[in-house]
Amino acid sequence: MTLGPALQAIAVARSPYRQKLGVPRQAGLAPDVRCELQLDASFVGPESVRGLEGVSHVWLVWGFSEHFGATRKDTVRPPRLGGAERLGVFATRSSFRPNPLGLSVVKLLEVDFPRLVVAGADLLDGTPIYDIKPYLPWAESIPEARCDWAPQSPTRLHVRWSPDLAASVEALDAADRRAIEQSLALDPRPAWERDKARTWSTRIASFDVSFEVSGETLMICGLRHASG
Amino acid sequence: MTLGPALQAIAVARSPYRQKLGVPRQAGLAPDVRCELQLDASFVGPESVRGLEGVSHVWLVWGFSEHFGATRKDTVRPPRLGGAERLGVFATRSSFRPNPLGLSVVKLLEVDFPRLVVAGADLLDGTPIYDIKPYLPWAESIPEARCDWAPQSPTRLHVRWSPDLAASVEALDAADRRAIEQSLALDPRPAWERDKARTWSTRIASFDVSFEVSGETLMICGLRHASG
Repeated sequence: MTLGPALQAIAVARSPYRQKLGVPRQAGLAPDVRCELQLDASFVGPESVRGLEGVSHVWLVWGFSEHFGATRKDTVRPPRLGGAERLGVFATRSSFRPNPLGLSVVKLLEVDFPRLVVAGADLLDGTPIYDIKPYLPWAESIPEARCDWAPQSPTRLHVRWSPDLAASVEALDAADRRAIEQSLALDPRPAWERDKARTWSTRIASFDVSFEVSGETLMICGLRHASG
Repeated sequence: MTLGPALQAIAVARSPYRQKLGVPRQAGLAPDVRCELQLDASFVGPESVRGLEGVSHVWLVWGFSEHFGATRKDTVRPPRLGGAERLGVFATRSSFRPNPLGLSVVKLLEVDFPRLVVAGADLLDGTPIYDIKPYLPWAESIPEARCDWAPQSPTRLHVRWSPDLAASVEALDAADRRAIEQSLALDPRPAWERDKARTWSTRIASFDVSFEVSGETLMICGLRHASG
């Protein structure tokens, strides 16, 4: 057993995802969703981001803080496989890992220390960030790579708004609307509960959203500005 | 200040790079160099790699163990820029980082618990590995990404063997020869010492290798089987 360094967060993510239900299962799947990274100015200074404006995409190494201290097994059941089949944790991107580290490539939109704005993050609000690194396409873009059990981007549901919500949708900010639609299109339901007919609720951006899924269509049936 | 989880190595890398001089500065640059990952069977079991045989490339999240506890600054001087210009650490892949984590995508060649064999690693022998994740091309291959200060793969030196070494080169295993040639072609010299004419030495695989550089040519002038 070799103990590694104790990590210290360099930043915290401020994301529209306040609850786990709705967070995309990989980076880039909800490409227009913006997330703010607040660097800890008591740990890293303004010079630490010098030159970042010349970088289009960055890696974030972050912590599955929801699972710190959780027990874990050598195998997990990826939602992509319907939640029944088990795979070794190192063959998956499961959040239950021996070391609870996440990895996401995101588009860098703004650099304004101590604030960075990124798009496409799959991070829960409050996620601790341990490192930011430039994405190097000549080393890291490998289109021919193969992952047999997850060979392509997940299929999307068709997202519809209940006619009852017409007025609320009209009033919705375009960015919030895209965040809600892109996130829900990814089918946030746990794999093992997809055959139940029920209404789901989660919070995205400042909204409590509820929805139902039937076949390939997800119907948003509730939208309310969250109070807290 | 938010403290993260204490990391525990899941594996250790057995690599041909016994010294820092010669380790490629990114993964994939010396594509045929093989590295063995020895999983810690007291921490993770055989089932943890189930399904990995269907994955062609994996991410390694690892520790810059040479620098654990080192002081670091907000800026660094990338070799690529000649060692004079300073950039913010988060705009670079420097090994001196607030959290000493490295990130490398490697080709997975063999899965034989507790042993994995990978190609293209940029790891020093003995490097602790904290996580292994499948590479997902539909999320992580972004050929249009841009890093202005390192826009493309580094140019290679022409590697030549001194005529004196003809017999030794003839006897060299093909894999060792490729490891030596591919690694040295990347110009391992520190950026700030490239204008000095001198002989350099390092150890790659089981060989003590010495070389000189003149213009775009690197001449290997010594090759000796290492004793220890």
